Order: sequence, then structure tokens, then C-alpha cells
Amino acid sequence: MTASPLFGTLCLVGIGLINSSIARAARLHGLAGRIVTLDASQQACETALKLGIVDAAGTDPATVLAGADLIIVGTPVGAMAAVGAAIGPHLMPGTIVSDVGSVKMAVVRDLLPHLPEGVHFVPGHPIAGTEHSGPDAGFAELFQGRWCILTPLPGTDAVAVDKVTTLWRTMGSMIEIMEPHHHDKVLAITSHLPHLIAYTIVGTASDLEDDLQQEVIKFSASGFRDFTRIAASDPIMWRDVFLNNKEAVLEVIQRFTEDLTALQRAIRWGEGETLETHFRETRAIRRAIIDAKQA
Amino acid sequence: MTASPLFGTLCLVGIGLINSSIARAARLHGLAGRIVTLDASQQACETALKLGIVDAAGTDPATVLAGADLIIVGTPVGAMAAVGAAIGPHLMPGTIVSDVGSVKMAVVRDLLPHLPEGVHFVPGHPIAGTEHSGPDAGFAELFQGRWCILTPLPGTDAVAVDKVTTLWRTMGSMIEIMEPHHHDKVLAITSHLPHLIAYTIVGTASDLEDDLQQEVIKFSASGFRDFTRIAASDPIMWRDVFLNNKEAVLEVIQRFTEDLTALQRAIRWGEGETLETHFRETRAIRRAIIDAKQA
Repeated sequence: MTASPLFGTLCLVGIGLINSSIARAARLHGLAGRIVTLDASQQACETALKLGIVDAAGTDPATVLAGADLIIVGTPVGAMAAVGAAIGPHLMPGTIVSDVGSVKMAVVRDLLPHLPEGVHFVPGHPIAGTEHSGPDAGFAELFQGRWCILTPLPGTDAVAVDKVTTLWRTMGSMIEIMEPHHHDKVLAITSHLPHLIAYTIVGTASDLEDDLQQEVIKFSASGFRDFTRIAASDPIMWRDVFLNNKEAVLEVIQRFTEDLTALQRAIRWGEGETLETHFRETRAIRRAIIDAKQA
Repeated sequence: MTASPLFGTLCLVGIGLINSSIARAARLHGLAGRIVTLDASQQACETALKLGIVDAAGTDPATVLAGADLIIVGTPVGAMAAVGAAIGPHLMPGTIVSDVGSVKMAVVRDLLPHLPEGVHFVPGHPIAGTEHSGPDAGFAELFQGRWCILTPLPGTDAVAVDKVTTLWRTMGSMIEIMEPHHHDKVLAITSHLPHLIAYTIVGTASDLEDDLQQEVIKFSASGFRDFTRIAASDPIMWRDVFLNNKEAVLEVIQRFTEDLTALQRAIRWGEGETLETHFRETRAIRRAIIDAKQA
């Protein structure tokens, strides 16, 4: 901690749940000499300053980005092209740009073209979060024991990748390096499909007649409430995820629908053995997740 | 606590998660003079005795049921007809029979015909549980702050209903009285559909190629793991739920599938506004559940 910090100035673009958690963790672990945030919302800037999690905050890229060594973009992925256009002209060679977006191919597609020669791009995705959003929702321990996936393109400066790796490790994460395409395929099943299903089932319930809906709320402890937590996640962020990982998401929806139809058919025809066998198999996955300490 | 207990002898038929929790809570609150369990498994009987949660345990109905004032059946609902046939001949007039099954029409259909004249039947369903099963998994606080639904048929002895109500209230529950048919419809959406969906999505993941499956486990914190918890629930219990609430479950699967198809279409055609609007609406349900203190 007495050595000079890993980064002179860390600039967080967009100060939501993830970036505000990075601000807190980076400060706690002395990872940056100075932490600043660029956010299009004046109110978010003020909140971040009031919370004391950044040293400076502003809406003007030229001012805020000056002297930044690491920039982490934490906006919804649909905003990446606009963010790239806004920050690109102000980036100095040697700067590292990373992000925390839930899809990676679209981020590479939308952000990379705006980065000038000599800027190092290390896309990232921390597998951590809560159903809450905004700068108030962050906390320094969010990344403890969680994976962070980095998807640098071939030929990316190794020192830049190392520095981003060290940042995440110091904040408590384990690192996995992956190709963007593979990342998007894995996350389609582990994250995007579960969120879509949760949004769907909660939507199905909210379309019920009023009196039945009240009872759904009352008796939600019987299974339903587990879905409502993730269906309370940020609507803009998730809209952008689905629009920007369309191919992989549509593929897993298709698989899911086939599997649901098979169970539906087993229920209709009273095939108890089919149901029981299926329900036994899914227990093994739960045990594996507990063993992997990700439960 | 110094008054005589609500029930002289409480007999728990089947000593799994729910009934073993009742045993613990009933003892804690002095609700029964004596607590016994009838279970077809000699091993479950021994475990219950070893845990010290019952005063006696056995596999023979005639012996165990002798003198029981309240009998609570806590077996999978598919076993209700067999349980009825086994216990019916040993029941004395004035005995109260209840259950904790997750469906109610089928329990009335299968259990009631076996109960002799003068026996009071008060079907029940505590909206509480965990993904764990067996007598070891129970705990006395399971019902605290949770609802318990009772579905007595018209004309049921009011004193019997009152006594069962008092039992649940003393164990920490709130009581709701409902018709069996309505119960099954409400639970199809709050409980049965969520479990089926969770079983489906975890099954979809477990059908993936081995390397992808390892990654699903590793990165499950991104949403998937929330589903694996409920997909680890007891396979026999859930097989029986789906087979015994077929009509209501098939109806809600149909609604769910229509809704999922609509979102799938919005993703395919890039209809961001449709997605965002839907995702905003589901947040309201989460807030209502938090307000209802069932989160």
C-alpha cells in the first residue's frame, strides 16, 4: 500500500452499481492515485461526489478524461458507440480502456473503432451484481470471490492486460481469459436466459386479474419470489443485453422451449418417471455449484 | 405454557422437511403433550428419534396412531391415497386429520374417502420450505412470518379448524382460508410454474457439452444459480405436484409460453421499447413483495 498505486488516475465512465463498486474497492485497496467519473447525468455526478467515492466528477469528456491511465466504461452496452465517439478524441496513447459490459462482441464492435492508435483495449465482465442499480447501490466487496472475464483481442499489449488483471485480483476476483464470441455464448445460458425467463414469469403474473395478483404477492415465498429478484434488475441494461446478444440468446431460448415442451408433454400424459428422472438430474448441477463455491 | 397443551398427541405421518419442522416448532411452543411419527422408512424413524424431535416413531399405523388427537400427513401428494388406506381404519371419531401438501384438490380427492365418519379433515399448506429434504433439514423457525393456507370443505367442524389455526399461528404463521380449487390455481402460478421453469432451465444447461457445462457452473453467479436452488428440491414431491395439479399447471405453462414467445419476437426484431416497457413493469411486482414482507 505504501508503493505508488497501480494507476495514477482511474476514470469510471458511468457511475452505476458496478462502477461505483469499483470506485469503492479501488479506493479501499489503494489501486488508484485519483478516481474520477464521467457521467452524462449531472445528478449521478453529484451523488458520487456526495458519497465521497470519487475525487472528481463531471459531464464533459475533455475535462474529466485528462490524464486518465485506466478508463472503465460501465454504461449499458447499447451506449458503447456513443461513449466511444465521446471519449475517443480525448484519449492519449498508452491509456488503457476497459469496460464491464455483459456482452463482449457488441462492445468490441461498437467501442473499439473509436479508440485511437496506441490505446490499449481490454474488455472485461465481472460476474457479480445485485438487482439494485445506481451509485448508491455499490459496495467494495461486490467482486470478492467472483469471476471476472477478460476478452482481449489477439495482439493486445500484455502489460495492459496484466494491469487490468491485477486490478480485478486485488478487488478479490478470479480472472478468466476468453474470446468475446465464447463469452457471449456462455453468458447467454448462465445469465441472459435466466434473466429473460425471470422477466417473463413475473410478467405473466403481473398480467393476472387484480385479486389473483394480490395472492401471487402474498404467497410468493413458494418459489415465485426467487424470480422477482432478478426481474427487478435495470431495464435499460437488460434491454441492451438482449438486443446486443441476439443470436446466442435466441439459440438458448429455442433449446429452453424444446425442453419445457417436453416436460409439459410429460405432465399432460402423466409420465411420472420422465419428470422424476429430469428432476433428479438437476440436483447434480446445484451440488456442482456449491462445490465450486459460487452458490 | 403451563396450561395443558393444544393437542394431547400429535402424529406426523412422514417425517420430511415440513413435518420435522412442525415437530421442532410444536415442541418449542409446547403445542403437544406427545409427538410421534409414522413413516414407512425405518431409517427415517431412527433419524427422527436420534434427533430427539419425536417421542416415538414407527412404521406400524395401528401402534403409532393410537390415541392421536391431530394427525398431519406430510408425504408427497401422490402417496395420499395409500396413506389414507393405511391410516383410515385406525382413526377414532373426533380425531383431526390435516396435511401439508402443495396441491389441495387431489388431497381432498385421495385422502378424504378413507377417513371414517366423525373424523375432522382440515387440509393445509404452509407456504414455506427450503431446497433441502429429510428430517435433518427441518428447523423450528421455518414457518415464522409465512402464510399457511387452510382449505376445509364447507361444513367442517369449526372447533377443528380453530385448533389447526391456533397450531399454525403459534408456530409463527399467518392463516388464509381458501377453496381447494382456488388454492391450486394460485399455487400453480406462484410455485408450480416457477419450479417447473427452474427445473427446465437447469436441465437445459445440464444437456450442454461438457466444457460449456463446466463454465456454466463457474459463472453461475450471473443469474443461473438462483434457479438451481429451487431446481434442487425433492424430485418425488415435485413429480407428484405436477401430476396432481395438471390442469392448472398446463394452463399457466401456456400463458408463460405465449409471453416468452412475445419477448423472443421482440428480441429477434430488435424492438427495444417493447423489452424496456416489459422489464420496467416487473420491477413493480418485486417492490410489492418487499412491501408485503415476503421477500
